[in-house]
Amino acid sequence: MEKIDVPQLNVPRIVIIGAGFAGIQLIKRLKNKDVQIVLFDRNNYHTFQPLLYQVATAGLEPDAISFPVRKIFKKYKNVFFRMGTVQRVVAEENKILTDIGELDYDYLVVATGSRTNFFGLDDVQANSMSMKTVAQSLDLRSAMLQNFEQALLTKNLEEREKLMNFVIVGGGPTGVELAGALGELKNHILPLDYPELDVRRMQIHLIEASSRLLPALSKKSSEKSIGYLKELGVNVWTNTAVINFDGEVVVTKGEKSSQILSKNVIWSAGVEGNPIKGVDDAMQPSKRIKVNEFNQLEEFENVFAIGDIAFMPQKDFPRGHPMVAPVAIQQGNLLAKNIIKLVNKDGKLKPFKYRDKGSMATIGKNRAVVEIGKMKYQGAFAWFVWMFVHIMSLVGMRNKAVVLINWTWNYINYDRGNRLIIRKHKRVDSSRQQSEKLNDLDEII
Amino acid sequence: MEKIDVPQLNVPRIVIIGAGFAGIQLIKRLKNKDVQIVLFDRNNYHTFQPLLYQVATAGLEPDAISFPVRKIFKKYKNVFFRMGTVQRVVAEENKILTDIGELDYDYLVVATGSRTNFFGLDDVQANSMSMKTVAQSLDLRSAMLQNFEQALLTKNLEEREKLMNFVIVGGGPTGVELAGALGELKNHILPLDYPELDVRRMQIHLIEASSRLLPALSKKSSEKSIGYLKELGVNVWTNTAVINFDGEVVVTKGEKSSQILSKNVIWSAGVEGNPIKGVDDAMQPSKRIKVNEFNQLEEFENVFAIGDIAFMPQKDFPRGHPMVAPVAIQQGNLLAKNIIKLVNKDGKLKPFKYRDKGSMATIGKNRAVVEIGKMKYQGAFAWFVWMFVHIMSLVGMRNKAVVLINWTWNYINYDRGNRLIIRKHKRVDSSRQQSEKLNDLDEII
Repeated sequence: MEKIDVPQLNVPRIVIIGAGFAGIQLIKRLKNKDVQIVLFDRNNYHTFQPLLYQVATAGLEPDAISFPVRKIFKKYKNVFFRMGTVQRVVAEENKILTDIGELDYDYLVVATGSRTNFFGLDDVQANSMSMKTVAQSLDLRSAMLQNFEQALLTKNLEEREKLMNFVIVGGGPTGVELAGALGELKNHILPLDYPELDVRRMQIHLIEASSRLLPALSKKSSEKSIGYLKELGVNVWTNTAVINFDGEVVVTKGEKSSQILSKNVIWSAGVEGNPIKGVDDAMQPSKRIKVNEFNQLEEFENVFAIGDIAFMPQKDFPRGHPMVAPVAIQQGNLLAKNIIKLVNKDGKLKPFKYRDKGSMATIGKNRAVVEIGKMKYQGAFAWFVWMFVHIMSLVGMRNKAVVLINWTWNYINYDRGNRLIIRKHKRVDSSRQQSEKLNDLDEII
Repeated sequence: MEKIDVPQLNVPRIVIIGAGFAGIQLIKRLKNKDVQIVLFDRNNYHTFQPLLYQVATAGLEPDAISFPVRKIFKKYKNVFFRMGTVQRVVAEENKILTDIGELDYDYLVVATGSRTNFFGLDDVQANSMSMKTVAQSLDLRSAMLQNFEQALLTKNLEEREKLMNFVIVGGGPTGVELAGALGELKNHILPLDYPELDVRRMQIHLIEASSRLLPALSKKSSEKSIGYLKELGVNVWTNTAVINFDGEVVVTKGEKSSQILSKNVIWSAGVEGNPIKGVDDAMQPSKRIKVNEFNQLEEFENVFAIGDIAFMPQKDFPRGHPMVAPVAIQQGNLLAKNIIKLVNKDGKLKPFKYRDKGSMATIGKNRAVVEIGKMKYQGAFAWFVWMFVHIMSLVGMRNKAVVLINWTWNYINYDRGNRLIIRKHKRVDSSRQQSEKLNDLDEII
């Protein structure tokens, strides 16, 4: 394999895989320090994942929540970005193999994030949609709109029901926010767009295997969110698991053991690490990489993992930290300090300690639940807090402004302006998707 | 073929093929009249084509210049939209055949617009890019950015040159505006994004077969635009024709007879009608449909063609009207009146008379040429006029606001925020593109 052409500088080289929250934050703290940073990502942009569901439900354009990596780092003299897919880590030789060549490193940071976990339900995986990337969210938007166009064309009522019904699996923030956004579409947008269809017949089901929604929030907030969802016409089923989906019928068991007709199933019931070959010894069943309290791999002290991919069992977190942006950002911050210490051979490394800043979810206009420390808000004020936090977290002024305009517009008009099928979604047959899944391990980041 | 399910109303049914400027305008003038309108388009959105080049050059998001058809007509009780591809007109039986079934009509309006004309240069068609749809513009954006990422990876200087050079064929408004936008990218964006590349080596060539650019404008404006392009570092070649492009080398003849190395060739040298089977008798060599001064086909008096697809030779326009938005809009307006007359059997039809409102092109920040009637502007004022006219012509407040924000942002920061490769562009091999081209006739609108 040929070497990747990167300038040879006389400073340690840190290779970072992944331009998510963790990787970006780490690099920000290493700005113009005496290290060379080579960043790999398979995309040339950073994705603000918490708002992917709004791209999927036509509330935002994809460009509003994506930000060019090169633009983030244009004033960083020590950062070299390469768009490529890392195929394998050869930690014994301090190098990585990628689709654009191989590269040596002094320090390696794996920040590859997470991917959807279907828990071995192959049929569900082959036939349902997920929402971890911009492309997947656009596919979901297109599929939803295409199915509504299709519903107009059929006289078969059962077929029409399948096309109009939505099943969302998983009651975490993603599932709850998506269900709420679909509820708003059902109440305010779709009846105007499709006067020929009886949109009241459209069913939205949110199915959660455990006993309640939003496990990271208090029981009160969780109950409040169910109330909000019901107001929007969403059917919530707790203690219910999806065990099969063949593309037309969802089979559940538990409290609601039944079959639901639907061609629109969105799986947000679980995530797992986005693994990478060559560090398999540290890999957990959750596909996360086990690290010590310095985010360091046990076997290789110059290899680190941060963010969703890192599995760091600690006293309060025996099964690892939650796979959320604040953990990734805090680990990025700390690792920057620790790497500087290692490079300068300057003192002991500082262990990671997660400061939980709270959690929040929005269900719809004026309907949100927010918990920050001991403070708990619901309703319109919580909704404004949610919007403020998300806009402030977006990278770049242009994106902030575009999101603000869209939200203001949607707020005033009860509208979603982006219901466009820019590129049609083509359902791939199960066998092909299966083989894509098998290739997935070779195409991480 | 099954019938498409559309309500049977006791009023004449007008079937309109195409949701471009012509079709949209026609429907606006038929709002809630005593006719049933069934609109077909292969997309669920209207595209503002004059700004496609800004999507291609990362200045705007695709959602800003696309507008959902159903949203435009949500208060129109007599409009029924069907997303589908019309395959054939059977004018003798007053019906159309589509990929979603067949449908009878009382009046048919063909408003299928235009497509790129490669004048039989198959190699050029197979290897170059064009910019008539949102998807094509996104492909162009992705290909351009992917080639720059690729240029970083090669040590072969000739290969790098091919990846960084751009050749735009055709000096009409599209070619001139695209060349100007690329010039600005070269001067202000790419050097910051790719400090490792010597962006000064990037060449932008604009090649025009006739003796001058912008033939619809005065000679003075045309010369001014060449001056602006040169300021931005664009090489302009007039009296020069592209005769071959194999994917790596552009062969030209004429004043500049030579070979240019480039993998980025954008063809904007010609358009032709977007034809439709079944009205072949009226088809001209330009693939436009011949109509009389009422936009009516000679053979079938209840079939009309408007906009780019219509070929109406008139005294001042022996070779038909220019294929631009104002003609389409004016023909849509007039046809609405004439159809109402036909329906009501009320008086003689009014012939079409084109009122030329002028023409304009923008080359870059503070650089534009505008001619409205006898008034001619250049420079910063012309540029503001250009922006004002385009923003006012966009459908919808949200789109207007998003475009305004982007332009303001780009103006202040010399920036293009949307340089994202959302879906990678895959170069298809020539043989496949060839077969897609052959299928094209079956997939109009």
